[in-house]
Amino acid sequence: MTLSIHDIRAAARRIAGHVRQTPILSSPALDALAGRRVLIKAECLQETGSFKARGAWSAISNLTDLQKELGVIAYSSGNHAQGVARAARAHQCPATIIMPKDAPAAKIQGTRDLGAQVVLYDRATEDRDALGAKLATERELTLIKPFDNADVIAGQGTVGLEIANAARSLQAEEAEVLVPAGGGGLLSGIALALENDAPGMRARPVEPEGFDDVTRSLISGAPEHNTQLSGSICDAILTPSPGNLTFPIIKRLCRPGLVVSEEDCLHAMALAFRHLKIVVEPGGAVALAAALFQPDQIRSDSVVVIASGGNVDTKIFIRALEYLDK
Amino acid sequence: MTLSIHDIRAAARRIAGHVRQTPILSSPALDALAGRRVLIKAECLQETGSFKARGAWSAISNLTDLQKELGVIAYSSGNHAQGVARAARAHQCPATIIMPKDAPAAKIQGTRDLGAQVVLYDRATEDRDALGAKLATERELTLIKPFDNADVIAGQGTVGLEIANAARSLQAEEAEVLVPAGGGGLLSGIALALENDAPGMRARPVEPEGFDDVTRSLISGAPEHNTQLSGSICDAILTPSPGNLTFPIIKRLCRPGLVVSEEDCLHAMALAFRHLKIVVEPGGAVALAAALFQPDQIRSDSVVVIASGGNVDTKIFIRALEYLDK
Repeated sequence: MTLSIHDIRAAARRIAGHVRQTPILSSPALDALAGRRVLIKAECLQETGSFKARGAWSAISNLTDLQKELGVIAYSSGNHAQGVARAARAHQCPATIIMPKDAPAAKIQGTRDLGAQVVLYDRATEDRDALGAKLATERELTLIKPFDNADVIAGQGTVGLEIANAARSLQAEEAEVLVPAGGGGLLSGIALALENDAPGMRARPVEPEGFDDVTRSLISGAPEHNTQLSGSICDAILTPSPGNLTFPIIKRLCRPGLVVSEEDCLHAMALAFRHLKIVVEPGGAVALAAALFQPDQIRSDSVVVIASGGNVDTKIFIRALEYLDK
Repeated sequence: MTLSIHDIRAAARRIAGHVRQTPILSSPALDALAGRRVLIKAECLQETGSFKARGAWSAISNLTDLQKELGVIAYSSGNHAQGVARAARAHQCPATIIMPKDAPAAKIQGTRDLGAQVVLYDRATEDRDALGAKLATERELTLIKPFDNADVIAGQGTVGLEIANAARSLQAEEAEVLVPAGGGGLLSGIALALENDAPGMRARPVEPEGFDDVTRSLISGAPEHNTQLSGSICDAILTPSPGNLTFPIIKRLCRPGLVVSEEDCLHAMALAFRHLKIVVEPGGAVALAAALFQPDQIRSDSVVVIASGGNVDTKIFIRALEYLDK
């Protein structure tokens, strides 16, 4: 199946009124630091604290009545989990979520608070795909994959529609759009939306060091894999490789990737606290980190960055705040 | 001079495109805690990190060319300071700001970063009004008072226009609106806007313990004074008494005040971090604290709270985060 702008528009109609149109923020201090205008699409202010609420609602609202009655299953480090739990509850659909044991406590608790049944697994030794497939078969659950699902990608693409819609009034029609990339659901959805609605804008993946599979895949032209599966504070975007559905879109539409250090992510979180008054999690801060600390890698006068999530435990956040006194 | 809805609408036209229309956020977890729907008007996401950007732009954009050339002066613990500094710079107008020595470092630095000349004074021993008047006379500066200025009140009232405008789609037409109150500029402006545009809504002041002059003034019917002038983490709203312009409006339109503890402010800041992903300063969190921890004092099914600012030093914010583990 080929995804198109029509799927994203259909998703936008399904999610309207159920997820937020998030604001685009900015700060003179950040502009000065980056040497250009930095426009921050604050998806951390989305329902459930990340853009994942969009794709999850898009997918679950498109299920058949029988599928909703039987229930859904998802695997996620926490943001997709909360998005699916919320959308499922609103559709009277039981939700089972498979989460890694080392997911942030706030995300596990947040998922349980939204009424989902949480099953924990070991990220290093267990295969979440196999676990998900097994439970799905046994219980006749519909698996809502975190990125390799057309309705999910279409839902995440609505972020791109909103950026395209705001671009003219912001005079940002030629801006590069930096997108935190795990499996590439948000990236491919945004890229598709921009291709149609803001052809002067181009999406680029941003990843943490050691988990730069999308960036390397763009260079080699074929899906590359990460050697490690855990061990970064950027838990939201530690995916082994780009998806079967997402990579062809990314390969066709995206510009080269950027790779940032954990230190720069923490520093970007601190600056978002100070200058934007938003809470961003490490994996959600990679694009802002790239804009602030790798300005030479960017060509456009304005840059749009997605602050994709804000579900962070206090310990990590306090570590980030220390960067303000350095 | 009598302020009316027409002044607020005129201010809205002047500030359009120069300040943000801030989002109204919510969270099922906060609703559950409060026992009713809690709608948070996130003015911490405003330019300069507080609603003060509105009143300052409203006032400075309405000055004569000569006044702008000679310059403005303002006294402020930091939020009005940054609002005035920003608006003055945009109007090529020199700005002198008198700030207390014990203002948060982030606010003093923020004001300097916006190009203003900062003069520090001692909150306990010096009279900022007299100091402001003296400097204004010597240098022929126009004094932009933080709340007792019609253009400032009209600017802050635009928050009320935005709430009234959103009330219908949020089904919140009968909601109480809780407003952090210092001198009452934001409170009186919102009350005037609601009177005309959302007559089913009523504004109520919220203050920290020990600084409840507006609440006591509403009870006695005459302006009451605080005995202390410093010594609270809620630095943004430590004003000696309601203003000459603001109090008649407050007395005519506002419902009884609420008074919250510092502990509840810190706890509310922590919950805003966790569930809303916004950074709120102590004085900006009093209304949310009242909604969450004094639900018996509120009558409406939904309550709107203004999160009025987010300019907080990291030390205080880290203290607040400790409430999540309690």
